[in-house]
Amino acid sequence: MKEIYSKVREEISIYNLKEYEGKEVIIRGSVHKIREMSSFRFIILRTKEGLIQCVEETDISIVKEGEWIKITGILVKEGEWIKITGILVKEEKQELGYELKVKNIEIVSKPKEQMPIIINKKELNLNLVSKLDNRIVALRHPKEMAIFKLQEGIIRGFKEFMNNAGFTEIKSPKLVSGSAEGGADVFKINYFEKEVVLAQSPQFYKEIMVGVYERVFEVGAVYRAEKHDTSRHINEYISLDAEMGFIESFEEIMEIEVALLKYIMNFLEENYKNELKLLEITLPQITTIPAYKFSEIKEIVSREYNRPIKDFEDLEPEEEKLIYKYVKEKYGSEFVFVTHYPTTKRPFYAMESKENRNETESFDLLFRGIEITTGGQRIHDYDMLEEKMRKRGMNVEGFESFMALHKYGVPPHGGLGMGLERLLAKLVGLENVKEASLFPRDRNRVRP
Amino acid sequence: MKEIYSKVREEISIYNLKEYEGKEVIIRGSVHKIREMSSFRFIILRTKEGLIQCVEETDISIVKEGEWIKITGILVKEGEWIKITGILVKEEKQELGYELKVKNIEIVSKPKEQMPIIINKKELNLNLVSKLDNRIVALRHPKEMAIFKLQEGIIRGFKEFMNNAGFTEIKSPKLVSGSAEGGADVFKINYFEKEVVLAQSPQFYKEIMVGVYERVFEVGAVYRAEKHDTSRHINEYISLDAEMGFIESFEEIMEIEVALLKYIMNFLEENYKNELKLLEITLPQITTIPAYKFSEIKEIVSREYNRPIKDFEDLEPEEEKLIYKYVKEKYGSEFVFVTHYPTTKRPFYAMESKENRNETESFDLLFRGIEITTGGQRIHDYDMLEEKMRKRGMNVEGFESFMALHKYGVPPHGGLGMGLERLLAKLVGLENVKEASLFPRDRNRVRP
Repeated sequence: MKEIYSKVREEISIYNLKEYEGKEVIIRGSVHKIREMSSFRFIILRTKEGLIQCVEETDISIVKEGEWIKITGILVKEGEWIKITGILVKEEKQELGYELKVKNIEIVSKPKEQMPIIINKKELNLNLVSKLDNRIVALRHPKEMAIFKLQEGIIRGFKEFMNNAGFTEIKSPKLVSGSAEGGADVFKINYFEKEVVLAQSPQFYKEIMVGVYERVFEVGAVYRAEKHDTSRHINEYISLDAEMGFIESFEEIMEIEVALLKYIMNFLEENYKNELKLLEITLPQITTIPAYKFSEIKEIVSREYNRPIKDFEDLEPEEEKLIYKYVKEKYGSEFVFVTHYPTTKRPFYAMESKENRNETESFDLLFRGIEITTGGQRIHDYDMLEEKMRKRGMNVEGFESFMALHKYGVPPHGGLGMGLERLLAKLVGLENVKEASLFPRDRNRVRP
Repeated sequence: MKEIYSKVREEISIYNLKEYEGKEVIIRGSVHKIREMSSFRFIILRTKEGLIQCVEETDISIVKEGEWIKITGILVKEGEWIKITGILVKEEKQELGYELKVKNIEIVSKPKEQMPIIINKKELNLNLVSKLDNRIVALRHPKEMAIFKLQEGIIRGFKEFMNNAGFTEIKSPKLVSGSAEGGADVFKINYFEKEVVLAQSPQFYKEIMVGVYERVFEVGAVYRAEKHDTSRHINEYISLDAEMGFIESFEEIMEIEVALLKYIMNFLEENYKNELKLLEITLPQITTIPAYKFSEIKEIVSREYNRPIKDFEDLEPEEEKLIYKYVKEKYGSEFVFVTHYPTTKRPFYAMESKENRNETESFDLLFRGIEITTGGQRIHDYDMLEEKMRKRGMNVEGFESFMALHKYGVPPHGGLGMGLERLLAKLVGLENVKEASLFPRDRNRVRP
């Protein structure tokens, strides 16, 4: 028997070096780049937070590769994983304000082969296919690292906001017996003797849980078997979902989204400074967000840009871009709500407007020209729901649990679902949403 | 155009009523129970946090059902969703220390039918099947609500610990091209023209990301197509996963797990007091956790309880219970590590012990007699990995990305995966792990 104690190895943050000035420290990482000078060499170490310059001095005036071994006793190569012991010294030319004077190096892991791509230049400079084919190592580029730190930041900001606002985190199943969105775009699974599909959204489960905790949220995967391969779609994505009871109108959900986005931007500003700086990101300033009725903004864009309306039931991607242009110029806002979508284009559970049953109490939020959120009020009355399903020719069977929820009662409620990858892509300025997913899935890509 | 402002409706916490004493407040919830007395009635309101007693007084000395309408103007029934306006008054007999004197009631949603189960008694008192069949409303029982608040608490504690310890949160895909654990228990998906399976663990992705952020974690679903239906298994569960680079031995991972569990227990103690109290839970006290080698503890249990060893390669469920009994009696610990599992029983990527290649540098953690964590050091050397795969008759093809990771180098690393539902079940004292999942999936159950 052995007793195991509680212990977490403490590590120095390269963004907090001041207190270690002049002290001996150990820093771990991968050899990102080596630059040999006349009487010293630089080892740029890629730590888990980013790059730090380490300097190894020598008194040998002419140095050939391999000669360094005489100083530390160790010859290091790019791509190796090492532990450097050294003294932290002030160096104003360095972004961190410090560099590490090497005293000793220990190699803990050596690659078998050189990487197939170059990750130690300022930019990765790969086309989309190469970037994704070489994802395993491409993600080691400091800018890629920064992008997915921001992904973490958005998730953390979202959760912290939700927890503070009295929302309870839930975990809903992704193996479900029916399709929430009513579409055909579902992936089927061979589940023992049953037909099961992958959840297209946590909608039903959020609504069930509104009957339990009133305010709930979930960060989870959703699956859409969409066949088209565009810069706006991936087949597995992360949805930031929330649902709330006792709302008086769907505008409450929009108000919450404004508060949420402000919170997330502040959270990133405070906790992800270095990543924002490296990626040269200016976060959008949010005070209020303008909202237009669907029919209204369609007409404005048509008039303003002299463009005939083709699709009266949905926004075309080009229209989304023009709406962005229009609102940006007119109000300086990078975000815009589009409300009252046609009933025909929304799922059966969407609440219709009392004034006009062809419109729904729903909204989309566009950010820099792309829809990042869909939300709205849902029907909570059993009879209303049943009538709407009947009108649509839907079979109530197959929706037993959902119907039961409404039969036994649920408060008026609404919510939203925000696509994590789209928000991240637009924030960073990535052209394709796939670049904002660690390991994107599309029709042709399921690796790595 | 309309401007949408940032706003979140503030709500009173029923656990923080002191500042509202004597004031008029609005409280929302569902009518949990009505008790009619001679000159007043109680409405027990089930809010999103739990129950609060509301009192409606009358000067009518004999009251029949329906008479209350004369006081507030409103007749309420159990199961309805209402908004109560009232004055908060001190009431020492109440657990909360306060009750609400009703001034006005607004009904916002009425059920169409009465619930098929009784949720307003102290205990739910349903067998497992009824409890799960009626999940939608059974979850509204205050004790069920408390159980899944603790689930949230474990997730929050886990994340906070990981963030503090310098781990980066990742989101890995669940649609994958191969099986990480090498078993046959995978769910297959019809993914366009490809064969794709649901991830059995995020193992490969965690290892890839160790090459990026050194320390990573994920809270995500994992899928096991196990045919057996036991009290210990569900087919979709939430895994709390972590992986860490630059470890010197697998004991570092165990040390982190001790620190992690302490943190989670403290987090629950601080933030989920009311739930712990309602469920009468005594959290396990953790100082250190004893660890035994697999072969050692097998022998001890066999000797101590006079039980012949049947399976030399794995622990039987009965043995896990006896190990718990033994360690509890001897050291007072509710947790115990079992280390050095046989190589034959661990996945191909498990690091073998230098001293004995039939054993792995791995561990399980048992809590109250059930395995809740599997962890260990992984092989980081390409040649070692290739040799082991060859010996096992595995085809390196199909593992291209994983092999590439090792080819281009990764630091020594290890990690763990903890089953959320098992930890929660044992913490609460639930007999079946299905009770610790909001919407459990087993061979026969995919609803609700």
